[in-house]
Amino acid sequence: MSKYTAKQIHLVSRPSGMPSQENFKLLEVELPVPQQGEVLVKNHYMSVDPYMRGRMRENAVYAEAYALNAVMYGGAVGEVLESADDSLQLGDIVANGAAWQDKFVAKANTMSKLVPFDAKQLSLYLGTLGMPGFTSYVGLLKFGEPKPGETVFVSAASGAVGANVCQIAKLKGCKVIGSVGSDAKAKWLLEECGVDAVINYKTCGDLSKALAAAAPDGVDVYFENVGGDHLQAALNVMNPFGRIAACGMIASYNNAEPAAGPNNLMLIVGKKIRINGFIVFDHDDMREEFLAEMIPWIQDGKIKSRETVVEGIENAVDAFLGLFSGNNFGKMIVKFD
Amino acid sequence: MSKYTAKQIHLVSRPSGMPSQENFKLLEVELPVPQQGEVLVKNHYMSVDPYMRGRMRENAVYAEAYALNAVMYGGAVGEVLESADDSLQLGDIVANGAAWQDKFVAKANTMSKLVPFDAKQLSLYLGTLGMPGFTSYVGLLKFGEPKPGETVFVSAASGAVGANVCQIAKLKGCKVIGSVGSDAKAKWLLEECGVDAVINYKTCGDLSKALAAAAPDGVDVYFENVGGDHLQAALNVMNPFGRIAACGMIASYNNAEPAAGPNNLMLIVGKKIRINGFIVFDHDDMREEFLAEMIPWIQDGKIKSRETVVEGIENAVDAFLGLFSGNNFGKMIVKFD
Repeated sequence: MSKYTAKQIHLVSRPSGMPSQENFKLLEVELPVPQQGEVLVKNHYMSVDPYMRGRMRENAVYAEAYALNAVMYGGAVGEVLESADDSLQLGDIVANGAAWQDKFVAKANTMSKLVPFDAKQLSLYLGTLGMPGFTSYVGLLKFGEPKPGETVFVSAASGAVGANVCQIAKLKGCKVIGSVGSDAKAKWLLEECGVDAVINYKTCGDLSKALAAAAPDGVDVYFENVGGDHLQAALNVMNPFGRIAACGMIASYNNAEPAAGPNNLMLIVGKKIRINGFIVFDHDDMREEFLAEMIPWIQDGKIKSRETVVEGIENAVDAFLGLFSGNNFGKMIVKFD
Repeated sequence: MSKYTAKQIHLVSRPSGMPSQENFKLLEVELPVPQQGEVLVKNHYMSVDPYMRGRMRENAVYAEAYALNAVMYGGAVGEVLESADDSLQLGDIVANGAAWQDKFVAKANTMSKLVPFDAKQLSLYLGTLGMPGFTSYVGLLKFGEPKPGETVFVSAASGAVGANVCQIAKLKGCKVIGSVGSDAKAKWLLEECGVDAVINYKTCGDLSKALAAAAPDGVDVYFENVGGDHLQAALNVMNPFGRIAACGMIASYNNAEPAAGPNNLMLIVGKKIRINGFIVFDHDDMREEFLAEMIPWIQDGKIKSRETVVEGIENAVDAFLGLFSGNNFGKMIVKFD
């Protein structure tokens, strides 16, 4: 055994409906000494993301299901404490897939060394420069195909993915309308991110009418994070040949029983709409282009990032649950000591 | 006035739910003498198609709504009786958009002269060689993008569109599964059209289970004519990166109130599915290629066409209503004397 112990969060039962603390357990385990090709990493930050809910299902929607009574996983950024591989040295910063634990031992080739453009902003590699930011970029540009002057509608618009979609669409010359669940989020998008119009779906009344009022020229691209009423409203207001980039449908993730879908899907035919479901992991060929555009945007202040940071692995489950209450603002990050 | 009178069917009220005879009226009108650039045409065949139901709505789903108290329109094939335009001569056969009337006067440039490959099969130009056949070709090949060896699922599979989709997919080397509402239709698809498996959705029980059993390798392409339960089953059984060509959703056309959609749309994301709504009129650039493939297929007996022919304009409304009862078999055609 090494001199290190790790705290891990295990999935101990599969949630039906909204998950709760009982579905998870915090354990402390001793870590082995890294063998040839392995490193021991201390995580500084881990990500909690809505897609993780899908992996808690027995029949996981995205990729494989988390095993029961084992540590979960996801995006994290850490620092090498011990190395038995030539490719990584003590102190190297690594992006890794070993979230839900504060330290771990793994093969060096399962992680990638980061040379951060700003060492004080490591958590950006879990948000704007990480999976959510890359998801925004791929979904909007590859599947939304927005043209300058077109109108882009983004649901969950202040979230880790949505806020980047909004800002990239603005940088590409589009009119952008976001949907959020609080006035504070609306204010941030309008005042800080330059979004043209924001709908608070909790207070706007009929969502289709609110969207039609915000989008007098119709919607050309819908970036789908929510599903349900949002999809229905988007279809109602979309223009012919509109494109929907279907990234997620968070409205349904905690349904114990499946809920019925929109009642106006025939508009897909009549309006000749294209819908592309996508998962960012299939699009690594765009990563270089993404970083080449995104890092200067961040450095020039053209893309703003908002984070909610929760401290300590013992609060990681609460951070995850907060994704579904709408209480968090921007990218939800768990910071370890 | 010319020496001709025409029988016309007018829409006199907008149906709510299933249309009935009261929504329509048969009138006889005198026809004018064709002016310079016009011709007088006697229709031999007219088409009734499900899309026409959409045009009876005030807010039409496809293109513009039919006006009230005016003759409806749609595909027809006729013969020139009088011509005041150099491009068309007495006796020329023309495809035209002036269905729902047995004779009419219109500008010559609104119709196209046909040189039928077989004068006894004029009605094919309303089916396999007309809009429904072209719809099959465009939807399957452009939006379904089937590869040899893949599995294609077709709903309303013995219909004017579906039967061609099934047979084109077979000719392109695919495994084909059709869904129909009668055993006679199933038998025809299996025995005459070479379809690999057919599901009778009225008797199969759980449609997703029946489809999964018929498609042990999953479904790669779904040609959507029906919507509702069929879309839900297709999503359940589709493979990652599956493609849906959304041509129509006949299950919903006569709903007075919109019905809820499938409860599993999140699979679009998880399975990275692409859906393309389309309307054939946008794809005239493929017409030449379509005819170049389809005519030899028909001549060689590789594409079978099945028609239900109703005689007389006074029975055209019944023929149209028959589209929604499932009683017709193949392409529904109205033949005039």
